[in-house]
Amino acid sequence: MASKQPQKPAPRSVRKADSGEVIRKLEHLGLDMLKEIDDKQTPSFTTALRSKGNVLFDEGVGCLRLGEKVEQRKFVNVGQARKFMQTVAIASKCKKFLREDSHTSIRGLFYQLKFSLGEDLDEELFSEQSESNPLIEDLEVAIDVKREDLNLNTDRKGVVAGPMKLRDKFGGDETVIDCTKQGRSGWMVPSDVDNGMTIEQLDADYVLVVEKDAMWQRLNEDKFWKKENCILITPKGQASRGCRRLISRLAQKKLPVIVFTDCDAWGWYIYWAIKTGSMNLAYLATDIATPQAKFVGVTMQDIKDYDFLGKLTIKAKEVDIKRAEEMLGYEWINRHPEWVNELKTVLKTQKKIEQDALQGPSLSFVGEYLREKISKKKFLP
Amino acid sequence: MASKQPQKPAPRSVRKADSGEVIRKLEHLGLDMLKEIDDKQTPSFTTALRSKGNVLFDEGVGCLRLGEKVEQRKFVNVGQARKFMQTVAIASKCKKFLREDSHTSIRGLFYQLKFSLGEDLDEELFSEQSESNPLIEDLEVAIDVKREDLNLNTDRKGVVAGPMKLRDKFGGDETVIDCTKQGRSGWMVPSDVDNGMTIEQLDADYVLVVEKDAMWQRLNEDKFWKKENCILITPKGQASRGCRRLISRLAQKKLPVIVFTDCDAWGWYIYWAIKTGSMNLAYLATDIATPQAKFVGVTMQDIKDYDFLGKLTIKAKEVDIKRAEEMLGYEWINRHPEWVNELKTVLKTQKKIEQDALQGPSLSFVGEYLREKISKKKFLP
Repeated sequence: MASKQPQKPAPRSVRKADSGEVIRKLEHLGLDMLKEIDDKQTPSFTTALRSKGNVLFDEGVGCLRLGEKVEQRKFVNVGQARKFMQTVAIASKCKKFLREDSHTSIRGLFYQLKFSLGEDLDEELFSEQSESNPLIEDLEVAIDVKREDLNLNTDRKGVVAGPMKLRDKFGGDETVIDCTKQGRSGWMVPSDVDNGMTIEQLDADYVLVVEKDAMWQRLNEDKFWKKENCILITPKGQASRGCRRLISRLAQKKLPVIVFTDCDAWGWYIYWAIKTGSMNLAYLATDIATPQAKFVGVTMQDIKDYDFLGKLTIKAKEVDIKRAEEMLGYEWINRHPEWVNELKTVLKTQKKIEQDALQGPSLSFVGEYLREKISKKKFLP
Repeated sequence: MASKQPQKPAPRSVRKADSGEVIRKLEHLGLDMLKEIDDKQTPSFTTALRSKGNVLFDEGVGCLRLGEKVEQRKFVNVGQARKFMQTVAIASKCKKFLREDSHTSIRGLFYQLKFSLGEDLDEELFSEQSESNPLIEDLEVAIDVKREDLNLNTDRKGVVAGPMKLRDKFGGDETVIDCTKQGRSGWMVPSDVDNGMTIEQLDADYVLVVEKDAMWQRLNEDKFWKKENCILITPKGQASRGCRRLISRLAQKKLPVIVFTDCDAWGWYIYWAIKTGSMNLAYLATDIATPQAKFVGVTMQDIKDYDFLGKLTIKAKEVDIKRAEEMLGYEWINRHPEWVNELKTVLKTQKKIEQDALQGPSLSFVGEYLREKISKKKFLP
């Protein structure tokens, strides 16, 4: 993976397409191919190279994005013909979905294609379990839209509460979602937080992202979001595309984003994926990254500041150690002495701390901890 | 596992405890132990044996439950002393949570115990990933309450839309949740659907449980619940305790429960766990089972009734074959000739069908399929 590349061109601006525009882009893709056929050329389209060698960290913006390398996919190419044909078929189906104003999953898309094209499809390519899907990514990158803009739903996960009202235009209806009135459940973050979703009211001082749903429920029960006037979000582990996109949208509204995870491999990964984006979604760049996010904890430093935490650490696993070592190798992490110090302490002590440990002295202590650290701006960058 | 046992005593009635009653039960447990000490006996408590040998299928009620075998846990027993002490400590913590009117996860409980008791705890016993947790189950069974009644949250999962209003008393607030006004997201099924949750209004004709969230979103977009006047629930795969409990509550309100899953190992498991309960939660019996549930599809018979499905089948995996063979061995399944026929067809053809395949001809076809099969009552038992 390259890094510190010259900062041109600027990373893509945040894309928010209306369906008419997306249909036009899809038609344009097809018309270009027709023209190539008329000109007695092989139909082709161009997409950015998405392999690691073309992922770079954009210093200026502070997120992972694709570099300038592109690939051309050609129909008359033994290795590409089948996939080329499938991508064109996907484009055609998506245009149909947009026209019908109906959404489906990539598994639904798979069966639509199988119905039309017959048996010649690799079902693994359309697995909802895989975060990336090369055929659909080709299309997203080639016409510069997100799959959500193609009426393709993604796995949804994550819950929100706090002073925010959203207007949801969906399936011919309009609903106002008041995130202060969601009781014990919270508002579930949908797959697509852009198309048909408007943030109507937002009176919060900041956004608090809490790794675990169990911890979110704890803080929700204590009305942390009400007392602190914040938007309380849990991605429930690794953040879904929709959840990252929502966090990024809230950050654009000038709200500080503060992330609270375990002090371990998984927690760090969740934080950095929210902040800088991730390798396999680098093609979405600033659409889903929130470079201004800060990390409130749990940290190794907390053990010094909160005595009781010392006896609530647990043994770091191999994956935690390996991840800490890897992270020390990333330029966008190791340029922060606070993170170097933090990760080296993990390597030295071979310990980890979970956010749940902050419930040790009392169930509501975690709120005191967050209040103190947030008010004193005790963050890692 | 035994089956066809005599039907006495009746399985537990549905338990809905108020916190005062639960506190009294916990205190009673402690007082009994104190009395034993006063009588110069070793403190002990009795719990139902939860191993497979004591799980039986109750023909009369139609669900899995525990038999009559009990176990006594004693403090003065080299193999039991440590766990006994931990169970008593858990009981004490839960009483505190109930008094404070605060909830936590079993991971939060782990750290509370670690804080009080020190290092001597097996953290694996308090993993949120494990559905069962022997120490807490001991306590649930010994005093005949669910862990949700002990203010312990469980993993929550599942989404609902449809003509139902719920009143949610939680964290000192009261909220009315209108499940017709949840937009694209739906109402997220909480961990505890009993304590503080009232079904205020319910105007539906039936409950439709849809295995996959992607399919739920498809049907929600088409307003299936509105057109068909049903409660549309997805457990998002295997149903959580809260989701099973909600389905069971709706069935008690005399709503028919219809389940729609893939025709494969996982889909069948989801159906039968909703209908009869599952081995490892047999101690909850009718609390979470819905014996009156019916299976609408997808079935092997559908391939004959819907021509296009023939080319949308996929190869059954080893796990599907193995599961079909196992299921043919269960008396509560093999007494239904329809299920025997269904499972034998899978074994013969080595094929499976996903519910997503019903989107093949058009995205909205799945609604037509459900409407037809439900109106004609084409169900498997």
